[in-house]
Amino acid sequence: MSLLPAFPDPSAAPSAGDRRRQHVLRAARACFSRHGFHGASMGRICAEAAMSPGALYRYFPSKDAIIEAIAEEERVGAQACMAAMAGPGPLVERMTAVAMDYLRGARDPESGGLMVEICSESLRNTAVGMRFHEIEGEVRSTFREALLAAQASGEIAADLDLDAVMTIIFGIGDGLLLRLQLQPDFDLERIAPYLRSVLVGLLRPTAP
Amino acid sequence: MSLLPAFPDPSAAPSAGDRRRQHVLRAARACFSRHGFHGASMGRICAEAAMSPGALYRYFPSKDAIIEAIAEEERVGAQACMAAMAGPGPLVERMTAVAMDYLRGARDPESGGLMVEICSESLRNTAVGMRFHEIEGEVRSTFREALLAAQASGEIAADLDLDAVMTIIFGIGDGLLLRLQLQPDFDLERIAPYLRSVLVGLLRPTAP
Repeated sequence: MSLLPAFPDPSAAPSAGDRRRQHVLRAARACFSRHGFHGASMGRICAEAAMSPGALYRYFPSKDAIIEAIAEEERVGAQACMAAMAGPGPLVERMTAVAMDYLRGARDPESGGLMVEICSESLRNTAVGMRFHEIEGEVRSTFREALLAAQASGEIAADLDLDAVMTIIFGIGDGLLLRLQLQPDFDLERIAPYLRSVLVGLLRPTAP
Repeated sequence: MSLLPAFPDPSAAPSAGDRRRQHVLRAARACFSRHGFHGASMGRICAEAAMSPGALYRYFPSKDAIIEAIAEEERVGAQACMAAMAGPGPLVERMTAVAMDYLRGARDPESGGLMVEICSESLRNTAVGMRFHEIEGEVRSTFREALLAAQASGEIAADLDLDAVMTIIFGIGDGLLLRLQLQPDFDLERIAPYLRSVLVGLLRPTAP
C-alpha cells in the first residue's frame, strides 16, 4: 500500500491527448519495469510506445518528466486508496477491501517489476527513490490518522505501537505484491480471508 | 524467510583459505547489492575485495561460480532457519523467533539490496533468478511440512488453506526485510510482539 504501482484514476473521460499521454506512460512503465529507470532510454520508450521521438517529446520533454508523471499517477492512486479507507464500516473490513483492490490492480508483471525498481531506487537514495519516498510519506500520515481515529473511538486496541503496526502493514503490502508476482498462477482471492485474520490479530478490533 | 540474505553458517572454525573465500563473497555481495548481478563485473568485485584478479580467480574461476557460492550460502542459511523452526515449544513462538533472527541478520543495507536484486532476477526468470527460486522451493516444502504437522497435532487450525497462508508468511518476510531497509533507524525489536499477533491471527493456534 505504499511503493505502489498504478491505480486507475477514477475521474475519467480522457481527451485524445490524454489517451496518447497515457499510452506513453504505460509504455514507459513497461520499459522501467524491464530495464530499470536508468537502463530504459527515451529511445527504448519510443520503441515500446511505437512513436517517433518527435511525437513522444510533444508529450514529455525528458525521461525525468515521464518519471514525474508516473510518480504523480502513483500519488493520485494512493490518495484514492486512502479515500476508500475513510469510508463507512469496520476499519478491518475497509482495510482488507482496499488491500485486495490494491493487490488486484498490481497483478500484472509490469507493475510488480516497476515496484521492485522503485524499491531499488529508494534503497539507493536516488532522486527517483526520494520522489517515491515522499509520496509514501503522504500515504503513511493519512494511514496514521485513520489508525489514531480508530484508537480514539475504541474500535481498535488503544495500546498499539502505531509505528510498528504500520511498518508491518506496509511490509505486508509490499511483500504480497512481490510474492504474487513470483506466483502468477496463484488465485489472489484466496488471500482475502487470511489478510483479514492478520489485520484482526494485529489491530485487535473490538467486537461489533 | 525465503529470498534470503546471508545467515551465518553455524558450523565454524574456518581455515585461512575459507576466510579468504568468505572475504571475496562478502565483497561480491556488496557489489551485487549496489550494482546488480549484471552490473557488477569481476573487476569491480576485485576492487571491492582489494585483491588482484589472479588472487581472486584462485578462489572463484568466474562470476557464475561466485553467484553459485552465494546461493549455496543462502541454502545453508535457509536450512539452519528451518532447523530452528523444528525445535520444541509452540509453533507460533518458534516462527516468531526464527523470523526475528532472520530480520536481525538481514538488517545491513547490503543484504537488503541483494534481496531486491534477487527479486528482480526472479521476476525476470534469469538463470540467477531460477537458482534462488529453487532454494525457495526447498524452504517452502520444509515449511509446509511443519504446518501440516502442527495441523495434524491440533496445534493450529485444521481448515487453513496452506498455500494462501504460506504466501502471506513469505510475503511478510520479504516485505518486512525491504521495509526495514527503508527505515534503517527503526528499532526492529518493536516488531516482535506484533509479528506474533499476526501469526496468531493467521494460524489460529489452540490455547496451550
